[in-house]
Amino acid sequence: MAHIDLGVDESMFPGIQGLLQYRPETARPLMMLAEVLLRGPSTLSPGERELIAAYVSELNECAYCAASHAAFAAAQLERGVSLVDEVRADLETAPITAKLRALLRIAAAARDDGRNVTAWLVADARAEGASDLEIHDTVLIAAAFSMFNRYVDGLATFTPDSPEAYLHGVHRIVRDGYLAGRNREG
Amino acid sequence: MAHIDLGVDESMFPGIQGLLQYRPETARPLMMLAEVLLRGPSTLSPGERELIAAYVSELNECAYCAASHAAFAAAQLERGVSLVDEVRADLETAPITAKLRALLRIAAAARDDGRNVTAWLVADARAEGASDLEIHDTVLIAAAFSMFNRYVDGLATFTPDSPEAYLHGVHRIVRDGYLAGRNREG
Repeated sequence: MAHIDLGVDESMFPGIQGLLQYRPETARPLMMLAEVLLRGPSTLSPGERELIAAYVSELNECAYCAASHAAFAAAQLERGVSLVDEVRADLETAPITAKLRALLRIAAAARDDGRNVTAWLVADARAEGASDLEIHDTVLIAAAFSMFNRYVDGLATFTPDSPEAYLHGVHRIVRDGYLAGRNREG
Repeated sequence: MAHIDLGVDESMFPGIQGLLQYRPETARPLMMLAEVLLRGPSTLSPGERELIAAYVSELNECAYCAASHAAFAAAQLERGVSLVDEVRADLETAPITAKLRALLRIAAAARDDGRNVTAWLVADARAEGASDLEIHDTVLIAAAFSMFNRYVDGLATFTPDSPEAYLHGVHRIVRDGYLAGRNREG
C-alpha cells in the first residue's frame, strides 16, 4: 500500500497511475513532459526513446517504470521484447546502432549524476551521428526518469508482479499517448 | 561551455535558462511543474518549498540549482539567508519547525533513492502534523530536483561563480513565478 491514501483502488491504478489520479495539478505537466520527450516530433523513434526510459528505470531498479516502459519500447521496436532484454542484459553487445548505444551510455551517466556526462561521451555520440537535439533529449529523458522513478518508489505505490499486468497499458500508450483522457487545457 | 550549442550567450542565460531557450517544447511542462510545486496553492509556503528544492540541489551538488533556489528561499523566508545556511549546515539543529524538518528528511531520502522513503519517515512527518498532500509534494519536489539537477549538470551548462549573479532572478521569480514571459498556451 502506498505511503499516502491515493483515494483509488491501487490494484486498478498501479505505479504512477494512482499518483496521477491523486494530484491532477502535477499530473498534467508530468504527462505533457512524457508526451513531448517520448512521443513528440524527433529523429529518435518512440521505440528508441522508450528504450532509454526503460534502461534508466532498470538501472534505478524502479520495477514498475522499468516493466512499463520496457513493454512500451518492445511494442514499438522491430525486434520487440528480445531487443529490450538484450539491452538490459548487456548494453555493449546488444544489436542496436552505434548511435543508440552511445546515447544509452549518456543516459546511464546522467542517471547516476549529471556531472558524469563527460565531453568524451558526448563526442563519441556525435561521432556516431547523434545531433545536439538528440543528445539534449537523451539527457532530459534520463533526468526525467530519475524523477519518475523516485516519485513512484518514494510514495511506495503498488507494483504488480505479473508481467501481463503491464500489457494493459501498451495499446493505450502506443495508440493514444500520455495525454489521452487528460484535459489538455485543464 | 555547455556540451551542446544552446544558441544563446550562456553568460546571459546560465544554468537551466539556456536549456529553456533551446527547447521551448520541454521548457513549458518543466516550468509548469516548477510553478505548481513551488508556488501553487499549498499549506507549505513558497519559502518552505524553495528550501526543500535548495536542500535537495545542495545534496546533489548541483551548484547552479542550489544557489538559485537558496536565493529564492531566502527571499521568501522570515529569517532569510541565515536560515537557509543553517539548514544546509545541519538539518538536525536548524531552527525550523519539526514538521519541516521531517519533510526535509523525506526529501533527502527520496533524492537518494525513492525506496529510502520509509514508512517510519512518513509516520514521523505525519506525527509532526504533515498532511498526505504535503508528503506527496515533498517527495515530488525532491524527485523533480533530482531531474532538474541532472538536466543542468548533464549538459554542462554555465554556472556563475559570484553569489550576486543569482540575485538577478530573485525578484522575477518571487514576483512573477516560473511561467512569466512564457506563452502559457504555447
